[in-house]
This record gives sequence, C-alpha cells and structure tokens, in this order.
Amino acid sequence: MRLRNKPGSDEKIAKNTKYVVPNPESWKGKWQERFAKEQPIHIEVGTGKGRFITEMAKAHPEINYIGVELQMSVVVVALDKLIEADLPNLQLLHANGGSLAQYFEKGEVKRVYLNFSDPWPKTRHEKRRLTYKDFLQAYEEVLIPEGEIHFKTDNQGLFEYSLASMSQYGMLLQQVWLDLHTSDYEGNIMTEYEEKFSSRGQRIYRLEARYPKR
Amino acid sequence: MRLRNKPGSDEKIAKNTKYVVPNPESWKGKWQERFAKEQPIHIEVGTGKGRFITEMAKAHPEINYIGVELQMSVVVVALDKLIEADLPNLQLLHANGGSLAQYFEKGEVKRVYLNFSDPWPKTRHEKRRLTYKDFLQAYEEVLIPEGEIHFKTDNQGLFEYSLASMSQYGMLLQQVWLDLHTSDYEGNIMTEYEEKFSSRGQRIYRLEARYPKR
Ligand SMILES: C[S@@+](CC[C@H](N)C(=O)[O-])C[C@H]1O[C@@H](n2cnc3c(N)ncnc32)[C@H](O)[C@@H]1O
Ligand SMILES: C[S@@+](CC[C@H](N)C(=O)[O-])C[C@H]1O[C@@H](n2cnc3c(N)ncnc32)[C@H](O)[C@@H]1O
Repeated sequence: MRLRNKPGSDEKIAKNTKYVVPNPESWKGKWQERFAKEQPIHIEVGTGKGRFITEMAKAHPEINYIGVELQMSVVVVALDKLIEADLPNLQLLHANGGSLAQYFEKGEVKRVYLNFSDPWPKTRHEKRRLTYKDFLQAYEEVLIPEGEIHFKTDNQGLFEYSLASMSQYGMLLQQVWLDLHTSDYEGNIMTEYEEKFSSRGQRIYRLEARYPKR
Repeated sequence: MRLRNKPGSDEKIAKNTKYVVPNPESWKGKWQERFAKEQPIHIEVGTGKGRFITEMAKAHPEINYIGVELQMSVVVVALDKLIEADLPNLQLLHANGGSLAQYFEKGEVKRVYLNFSDPWPKTRHEKRRLTYKDFLQAYEEVLIPEGEIHFKTDNQGLFEYSLASMSQYGMLLQQVWLDLHTSDYEGNIMTEYEEKFSSRGQRIYRLEARYPKR
C-alpha cells in the first residue's frame, strides 16, 4: 500500500496529537493514560487505512485499541476516520511492528491483530513477513503471558507459512478458519483489503493463536 | 467406507499370512522380522483399499510399510493389491489405530500417515476423529521421539480441526499445503478417496507435523 506522501500530512498529524502521539517512546508503560478508561489494550500491526481498527473500537468500547502503521501517508488516512468517529478508545501509532518494545512495556498489550499483511512471497524476503519469527518475538516482548495473535489474510502462501512459523515458534493454534466468509464466525469486521479480495471471490483465511506459558 | 463382509474374506486372509499376520500382538517389537530388510517402518492408519500404501511401498523400497485398517472387508481389498504386487516391504494389519500400543513397541514406528480419515463432522463425534487427542497419544506411544504424522484430506472441517488439535497436543507443524494439487509438492501418490474428491474439484489439504521432544 504505497501512497505518495500527501502534502499536509505532517501538519494534520501535528494538529491531532490527541490521536497520534508525536513522541510515542515516552508513553511506554503509560498507554492507559491516553485512553478514557483503563481496560485491555489490543493492537493491530499494519493497520493501513484504518477501517478495521475504527470499527472494532466502535463495536467494543470495553477494549482500548492502538493501530500501528509504518507508513505516515497511510496513518493520515486512518486518522481521518478516527477524527470523524471521535473515539475515546482508539489511538494511532506511526511505528514499525518489529520495534514494539520501544513503545510498550512487557505485558502492556493483550492481543495483536494482523490483517492482510504484505505476503512477501519470495523466499529471500521471508524476514519481512509479519509472521516471521523475529516479528513473533517482537510481539511477545510486549504481550501479556499467553497473549494472542488474531490473523487473517486472503493469501494462501502467507497463511501456509504463518501456520508453520507460529507453530515452530512454540505458539498454540486455538482455532483455524479456511474459509471465513462461509463459516459461522460472528462479528467479523472487514478490512479494506478483505473487501477488495473477497469481492473477487478469494477465500479469507483466519487463525487465532496464543503464546506458550514460558 | 462400508462394504458388506465378503464371503471368503476369512479364507483369503488365512491363506495369506505372509501379508496379513493372524496374531499381530505376538509381533510387537519384532515387526522388522516380517520384512526382507531391516529399515524404518512407516504406517498408514485407515488404509482403506490400499492404493496409497501399495504405491508408496513400490516407490520407496528403502522403507517398510504397514497398512492398518479397522474393517476386515476393506483389508481384503488391499490384500488383493498386495498379492498382485508381491512386495517385500509391505504388510497389512487388521487393527484399530487407537490401540497401536497392543501391536508395536515404543519407537518401533517412524512415521504415521493419515489419508482422508472419516471426518465425523458432528461435535459429539469429535472423539472418533483420527486426529483427536487420544489418537494422537496412541500414535505417540509407538513412534520414535519426534516422530511424524503426514496427513491429507479434502475435508475442510477436519483439516481445520486437526491443525488446532495437533497444535494443542504439543505437536509442531512443519509444513502445510492448502491446495496440494496446485502446489510444487513432488511425489504425491493419490489415494482412492483423493482421486474421487479431487476429480470433483475439491481442494486437497496436507500437513506434516512432528511430536515434541518430551
Ligand atoms: C497490505 S496492507 C493491509 C492493510 C489493512 N490491514 C487491510 O487489511 O486493509 C499492509 C499494511 O501493513 C503496513 N506494514 C507493513 N510492514 C509493517 C511493519 N513492519 N510495521 C507496521 N506496519 C507495517 C503497510 O504499510 C501497509 O499499510
Ligand atoms: C474414508 S476412508 C479413506 C481410505 C483411504 N485412506 C483413502 O484415502 O482412500 C477411511 C478408512 O479408515 C478406516 N478407519 C476408520 N477408523 C479407523 C481406526 N480407528 N483404525 C483403523 N482404521 C480406521 C475406515 O475403515 C476406512 O477404511
């Protein structure tokens, strides 16, 4: 998802520090203070244009959400949705999902969502996949013990890879869906990519996995 | 796969004790003696009419195979194939895959194949699925440490269930195929059920998993 850097992005973000914190490292261990209520924090890594996390925040006021996105030009699109919805339980974080420990204390996050992560199909790009072991470790560093990852994708190769990668990392698969949209799974919130790919007839894969006790 | 008991089944088996041992408990710990060469033993649980195990035995003379099947009427069909092929590295065993420890010593088996196992889709029949935890334990009791299961099926529900069941049992997924016949997997040998279902356009799922160290 490459957008050219929109003119005015930096200004818009600077004006909305209520939603996109300018110095996120300084909130490490203190994210609860940025929300109206103290309640579990779920993050999405690779939030993109932000429909999923915004709709989740509306549907689940009992959870505090943080959308983590690497590209500033995309954070700005998500920010527009958040400004419009004006939600007390959603924040955006312009950061790399591989460096979460810079921004969160161990145990500060309860669940990680990954949605339609870039597939990086070439073997030589394995390390860039958000379910590569180094990323799984980065998430574990900020999650509670036995914290969870909920992952969905239309990409068969990435899903095959992720099942094996998570298992070999020591994670436990709690449930797997090989065709989410024909299943009885309730409360699914479609992401921008999900809508696009499923309208082309692609199946959507989903899994829930948790880290082991340690 | 229900066939009525064929007249003459018992006689045919009694005449072919070279291939179907009449008192399998007595070979516990001694299966190597029933083969021409001492080499790793792979078993298939739920062998059905026996095409897979017969073709595997032809393709891999360096492995000793045992086809385990619960129904005598089906063992007889597999026996016909074995008589015709006359293979020194294949045996048939009329037994329940849940009771393998009656027939094998711990460590006597190196790999278990499960192909197109009955799906038992109703939750109340979960315990009958060949990837239910009690069966996984039965296989572990006869496998070498870090022994493997190779499983394929066309049944989406059974595959979803098996991924989670194996993972929760502590097994590690080594590789997963979500559409075997379009993948670059080489040396696939089709079972009777695989041919039937794939010719109807069903995808074939496959996984390789191994038991943990313990
Ligand atoms: C294919 S898009 C999917 C967006 C959205 N989740 C959806 O389903 O519509 C992947 C997004 O992940 C972001 N991304 C890729 N690597 C990342 C990383 N290491 N940390 C944070 N975000 C990342 C990309 O910038 C892009 O916006
Ligand atoms: C659906 S058929 C598949 C046969 C063959 N593997 C194929 O792919 O064509 C399942 C077979 O498993 C056998 N079976 C079911 N439960 C079993 C058990 N507990 N132990 C051994 N065999 C079993 C059935 O009798 C049947 O022949």
